[in-house]
Amino acid sequence: MKEVDCIVAASHFLTMEGAGVGYRPDHAMAVDHGKIAAIGPRNDICQAYRAHRLIDLRDKVVLPGFIDAHMHTSECGLRGLAQDTGYWMMYGLGPFEAQLEREDRIAGTQLAVLEALRAGTTTFSEFSRRPDHLCNFLRKAGVRVNITVTIREAVDRIYAPGELYEFDSALGEATLQTCLDIFNRYHDTANGRFTVMFGPQAADFASEKLLVKVKAAAVTAGTKIHMHVQQGDRETYQLTKRCGVRPIAYLDRIGYLDEQLVAVHLTDADETEAALVAQRGASMVVCSGSIGIIDGIVPPLKAFQNAGGLSALGSDQAPGNNNHNIFNEMKLTALFNKIRSKDPESMPAWKVLRMATIEGASVLGLGHKIGSLAEGKQADFIGVDLKAPTMMPVYDQPMRNIVPNLVYSARGSEVSLVAVDGQILFEDNQFCTIDENAIIAANQKAANGLGRRAKAEFQRIDGTNARFMREEKL
Amino acid sequence: MKEVDCIVAASHFLTMEGAGVGYRPDHAMAVDHGKIAAIGPRNDICQAYRAHRLIDLRDKVVLPGFIDAHMHTSECGLRGLAQDTGYWMMYGLGPFEAQLEREDRIAGTQLAVLEALRAGTTTFSEFSRRPDHLCNFLRKAGVRVNITVTIREAVDRIYAPGELYEFDSALGEATLQTCLDIFNRYHDTANGRFTVMFGPQAADFASEKLLVKVKAAAVTAGTKIHMHVQQGDRETYQLTKRCGVRPIAYLDRIGYLDEQLVAVHLTDADETEAALVAQRGASMVVCSGSIGIIDGIVPPLKAFQNAGGLSALGSDQAPGNNNHNIFNEMKLTALFNKIRSKDPESMPAWKVLRMATIEGASVLGLGHKIGSLAEGKQADFIGVDLKAPTMMPVYDQPMRNIVPNLVYSARGSEVSLVAVDGQILFEDNQFCTIDENAIIAANQKAANGLGRRAKAEFQRIDGTNARFMREEKL
Repeated sequence: MKEVDCIVAASHFLTMEGAGVGYRPDHAMAVDHGKIAAIGPRNDICQAYRAHRLIDLRDKVVLPGFIDAHMHTSECGLRGLAQDTGYWMMYGLGPFEAQLEREDRIAGTQLAVLEALRAGTTTFSEFSRRPDHLCNFLRKAGVRVNITVTIREAVDRIYAPGELYEFDSALGEATLQTCLDIFNRYHDTANGRFTVMFGPQAADFASEKLLVKVKAAAVTAGTKIHMHVQQGDRETYQLTKRCGVRPIAYLDRIGYLDEQLVAVHLTDADETEAALVAQRGASMVVCSGSIGIIDGIVPPLKAFQNAGGLSALGSDQAPGNNNHNIFNEMKLTALFNKIRSKDPESMPAWKVLRMATIEGASVLGLGHKIGSLAEGKQADFIGVDLKAPTMMPVYDQPMRNIVPNLVYSARGSEVSLVAVDGQILFEDNQFCTIDENAIIAANQKAANGLGRRAKAEFQRIDGTNARFMREEKL
Repeated sequence: MKEVDCIVAASHFLTMEGAGVGYRPDHAMAVDHGKIAAIGPRNDICQAYRAHRLIDLRDKVVLPGFIDAHMHTSECGLRGLAQDTGYWMMYGLGPFEAQLEREDRIAGTQLAVLEALRAGTTTFSEFSRRPDHLCNFLRKAGVRVNITVTIREAVDRIYAPGELYEFDSALGEATLQTCLDIFNRYHDTANGRFTVMFGPQAADFASEKLLVKVKAAAVTAGTKIHMHVQQGDRETYQLTKRCGVRPIAYLDRIGYLDEQLVAVHLTDADETEAALVAQRGASMVVCSGSIGIIDGIVPPLKAFQNAGGLSALGSDQAPGNNNHNIFNEMKLTALFNKIRSKDPESMPAWKVLRMATIEGASVLGLGHKIGSLAEGKQADFIGVDLKAPTMMPVYDQPMRNIVPNLVYSARGSEVSLVAVDGQILFEDNQFCTIDENAIIAANQKAANGLGRRAKAEFQRIDGTNARFMREEKL
């Protein structure tokens, strides 16, 4: 009998192995030194292994932890401040984002982790200018992190509609240097839980010269490029005006469309453009909630998938999407795409569950380590309570309803256990590595200051939410 | 100093009085004999009233309980069995619905109440053939109930696409008689918490003769008609084939379009038809999640509202929508309509919050009693925890973010208190009037039997979910 750290037994497993969801009844998983030592029928595992701890999850389903492939967690303290408004980035988010200080960003990331971990997210793909400020907390929290460092040349200020961005090559060089430094310091650290990607903000935010330099640096580093692609008509306008070509054609021309690219959004892409991105081998992150609220648009995910592309889900940021919860993204992605294609059979539950797990892991280049439950992979997994009213009742014949209920009914609070690298981070409503009350207090304090500082600019812009305040609609 | 049963004090109130959300800081509400005796600044209320109990909801927002204006709660035990499938009613739902027995339906309603009450629903508008079977439980649960009794003439069986329904006038008469009996027994009972409406299932499910008779009976009874209207291309096909006219034109011809009508869905209505329904004075219930999943369609709600119509939200049923949670409906209704109109300013948070409260109450003819917090109204209210991560942080300047966070971030688990007629039904994660464990057990038992019974028909139809089972996608 081999000794292992832990055996996790449950009535139901969704291993996400194979082409479907890899359902296995009454299985168990031996976990040792952060990895899955074995997975198989409960009796076989319990006979072959002796564990320091047995986690017996009767009436629960165990599945891989969720991959949130695109987040700006450090903006989480701006939750609820920029919905229902046009020209979102400049007029909605702008007045508040400009006031985010370093401590506000750290508090925001803490709040986002609190929320997302509670709802089963184990891999956080953070896109930020200074993600290194967040790493101390993220390492202690024990979550898996993909860090992307924003590289941009466009000067930081609020631009009016139609105004071309002003470039500052020194800013471009400085942000690239920061990215390289962070790559050298953090890539493949924390027992491999941290990886680093290169993040040109978008084609419109940097010159061709800088983009080409970033590409070469990423090739040298052997890591992926994670960038916003055709994220709105604003980007299309900037590129067309500056280079006479739409963003995806532009990126193709400068050699960006290949397996190295993780393309986020494709908001303003048409189906032909989305298919081209897939055919070139790049992958796509769809942020359904965010783009639905900010733009009222459903990106061409289905065309991308039909062309053979790998895709993942992202929660983006709280001032737009307003939450970090992959259950929300699975459901909205399924529903939005049924609506876009006017077909209830489009984007079924199993497909979005794969995007949230094994396919999402592959998009981030981590498919060999996480995303499914199989021998040799890291033990990133969650338990979901099937006795929660939203998951009830459970059918095993003539069809199983666990997967549709995970996607169409669960809200996140059904998650009862979260583990990364075999370490339990959340169990029975308690966080094991982070201090919930301290995080809540820090965020309220940050908001009190930020609200005061943002007031003048919010009033100067006098947008939709300023009107709603006057009309007593907030 | 007047004595009252209870004073509810909170840092934030959304009274839903006036044309917006009626925000009031640091207020309190005196509750006596199930009614709101007074509402005002905390100090004023605490000086004018002495209460047997003070409920002090610091860090919470108090608002009216949610109105779910269209539900089939008795099908809740079929959760997760009919998503991702075309021809939903006959091929998705059909094999399972046919096996629902009386006890299964009672268990289903119990599960739906467990789920919806937990998420702040206080008024349940149930549409069912034998809602009287559910009344004993609903009365004990203490929730507010609007009962609609299904009236139909179409013989119960699975029809193939294109097949015209077979009518049985005896069935029509019997279901009308059941409706009249239930109206006489339950309307305006349980301290006024129960009301009854007349429910022709839809224009395609009954003959003109029966529909005219039902209308006359509803006029005599002085209650509303609650019916599915143009709920899909199936209905349009039946009407066009049978009467040579689309459903809304047909209903207009036979005198159904007036203030008495609560029209549900309008799935297959165009904007002109939706506007006509509004102009005639009828109200609309939109079931965004349900119709999104079942049909991949966003009904023309915005056109209906632009024509001056009153509208409400409904969760419909669990085998389609898969859940009963008004937070879900508020969010999906806002997002779907932004997408339909390609405009992020469309269907803002305050509007869907009004649909879930005061406007929903008015649709059900209960606007004088519930839907807002004002002196003389029944004390149906909820408390929502603003220290839940999803509601954090709270801004009071330069704009308040509580309303956007309720709509775009909250998941339902943030509700910490639910009261109907001043009676507390849920508090701090405990149900006060219903037995959660017994309900969970009854539903699992019901599902075990129902799954066995539905197996043969499920396999005979061999639809999308049967294929997914073979492909290991469930």
